[in-house]
Amino acid sequence: MSDVFPLKLNPPNRILMGPGPSNVSPRVQSAMTAPLLGYFDPAFFKIMDSTTNLLRAVFQTRNKLTFPISGTGMAGMEAGICNFIEPGDVAVIGVNGFFGERIVEIAGRCGARVVKVAGEWGKPLEPEAIEAALKSEKKVKLLAVVHAETSTGVLQPLTEISKLAKKYGALFLVDTVTSLGGHEVKVDDWGIDISYSASQKGLSSPPGMAPFTCNDAALAVVQNRKTKVSSWYLDLSLLSSYWSEGSTARVYHHTAPALMVYAFHEALAMIAEEGLEARFQRHLRNGAALQAGLEAMGLTLFAQKGYRLSTLTSVRIPQGVNDAKVRQRLLGEYNIEIGGGLGALKGQLWRIGLMGYSSTEQNVLLFLYALEKLLAEEGYKVEPGVGVGAAVRSLRK
Amino acid sequence: MSDVFPLKLNPPNRILMGPGPSNVSPRVQSAMTAPLLGYFDPAFFKIMDSTTNLLRAVFQTRNKLTFPISGTGMAGMEAGICNFIEPGDVAVIGVNGFFGERIVEIAGRCGARVVKVAGEWGKPLEPEAIEAALKSEKKVKLLAVVHAETSTGVLQPLTEISKLAKKYGALFLVDTVTSLGGHEVKVDDWGIDISYSASQKGLSSPPGMAPFTCNDAALAVVQNRKTKVSSWYLDLSLLSSYWSEGSTARVYHHTAPALMVYAFHEALAMIAEEGLEARFQRHLRNGAALQAGLEAMGLTLFAQKGYRLSTLTSVRIPQGVNDAKVRQRLLGEYNIEIGGGLGALKGQLWRIGLMGYSSTEQNVLLFLYALEKLLAEEGYKVEPGVGVGAAVRSLRK
Repeated sequence: MSDVFPLKLNPPNRILMGPGPSNVSPRVQSAMTAPLLGYFDPAFFKIMDSTTNLLRAVFQTRNKLTFPISGTGMAGMEAGICNFIEPGDVAVIGVNGFFGERIVEIAGRCGARVVKVAGEWGKPLEPEAIEAALKSEKKVKLLAVVHAETSTGVLQPLTEISKLAKKYGALFLVDTVTSLGGHEVKVDDWGIDISYSASQKGLSSPPGMAPFTCNDAALAVVQNRKTKVSSWYLDLSLLSSYWSEGSTARVYHHTAPALMVYAFHEALAMIAEEGLEARFQRHLRNGAALQAGLEAMGLTLFAQKGYRLSTLTSVRIPQGVNDAKVRQRLLGEYNIEIGGGLGALKGQLWRIGLMGYSSTEQNVLLFLYALEKLLAEEGYKVEPGVGVGAAVRSLRK
Repeated sequence: MSDVFPLKLNPPNRILMGPGPSNVSPRVQSAMTAPLLGYFDPAFFKIMDSTTNLLRAVFQTRNKLTFPISGTGMAGMEAGICNFIEPGDVAVIGVNGFFGERIVEIAGRCGARVVKVAGEWGKPLEPEAIEAALKSEKKVKLLAVVHAETSTGVLQPLTEISKLAKKYGALFLVDTVTSLGGHEVKVDDWGIDISYSASQKGLSSPPGMAPFTCNDAALAVVQNRKTKVSSWYLDLSLLSSYWSEGSTARVYHHTAPALMVYAFHEALAMIAEEGLEARFQRHLRNGAALQAGLEAMGLTLFAQKGYRLSTLTSVRIPQGVNDAKVRQRLLGEYNIEIGGGLGALKGQLWRIGLMGYSSTEQNVLLFLYALEKLLAEEGYKVEPGVGVGAAVRSLRK
């Protein structure tokens, strides 16, 4: 059975404008060629400490337990739920998209009694609906919402909901997978108790790590559980013993994926150098230009005005246009990857990411140029240059 | 909070001779600088298919479900247990080391009723003891053993135990974390139903992936569960929908850590080029030379003769010698990392890995030279060159 013929590894050079991963800076990728260290090497401890420091800055938090989980964003989601829910606990979960549904699914597997607050896909959740759900239960353990719904492109305001969590004594969990590094996320100021994200979106680190933070009150909940966390791999009380900053008594849990940590560190260092505010402005400017271009082409944006992400834009596929064909041609002829609709929105939407290293003027212009051309060839009437023109005007504002 | 000062990433060049990670070939590391692909890119599907093919060859299996899990070896362990155990199921688990204990811990969290078969640390498990445990229960769901105990350096023979699993109708789970890629692992011929490993040991891929395989019968057990798998992230029925080979209808589960997959693919390609048999012989030869050298120096090997791993050698720390100091000096003066004792063996053992890219003649010779010198300086009487000499004679046999 040894006569296998490995593929010659030669992946094409894509422009990653889907819902993630975003493109990764060459500087971040070459960090992965640095010498590998063991998980107990003092030199690795220094890199861990610098990583947690940089990550705190991005989450805008002083939370001691702030570190990257050794798995993808979905491992972060699971960690954010399974550590805090014990069988029978009540979780109120806002659902206005595919990833809200996922939180419901995972909370259910952890034994939560889930109270779903259903919202319209494409619109933010209403604090009133959330309060009604919180009020209907004697004791709510966890209130969870998605900050940036990757399936719809909606940005959820958080400050009012956070006050409700405090008022009803629930831990406030926020999914920042598609916002962190592209939109402001103020964990401390906004009263967020627990948050997870993904490395490969606004942070533009390779996929494979889940940035995580929780405050001491939330960690105490984990440490005072009556039952053990179902997942040993994601048990925060064990993980915190290894990631404890400045500690000389770190306890082995699993072998740290050191090269992923190098890349993650370097991506965070680039964010520190750019500055958070400048980074958010860049995302805002490019996102607005893309959205102006799409609307000028007569297309309909899916997310409600005023609540649109700059990291991810969702747009309705015009009637009569072949979803798969357009995406295949974007990929084949322009090397541009965008995303299709998820779940109930399959075939109805395109999702265009402008995150981290992928959020550039040139990507906005090239994409609008390519889409305009392909749509015209699909029979959709569009004036040549109208999308690109609107984007340029938006960029020069 | 943006005034953080990132560390300049400049890790030292270590010789990784601990229990893992092993060193990684420059070819494997530079694979991680290839262009990043999205998880639904047809070009990535080809890399996935080639990866599963190469991994089947190393596991010596035709199992359809053979793929790397997006987490470290411990995620593999958890996947190997949580998918197959439902609350109340009986698991018979062989425990003759730290990692057997971990399987017990994780199985307990999954709700298993665990029957522990305790064996002496440093010796293999006796099939008789395992049979007694199997016989004592009406229905055993899972029988689990560790092939290569990383805490003791013992290689566990599997064929007899496998027959017992069949005889008593239990799924046979084998931890091949420290054997795969360095020792023979014949999943199909040995009747192993489920096996997981780690990327960073015998395979010499960076840490962060857990190679996994299970046969159709085991997968059917997952698909016919009465309860959902507690971990959504590690649910094999979902993961198999994404990793299904040659499928055009792959279902999104999580964003694949593409750069880790590239590295993993390249490490497997290097194994295919070396040839499995040649690779096992290299490990055997270097492991034997190391062990000959240590014994010539008057040191006591911990694992029972005849059952010693070539990937990992455990040796007793001589009386009066300072464990931490010797390891610190090995690291500081020679850049050599080795491991200390785990769990009950803390302070009693050193664990020296010779795995994958780290299993070389030069590493054996340098390590013995360095250890001899440091031990002499610690007051342990040892004739200069006796260890290295014995290793050379062993290598030239």
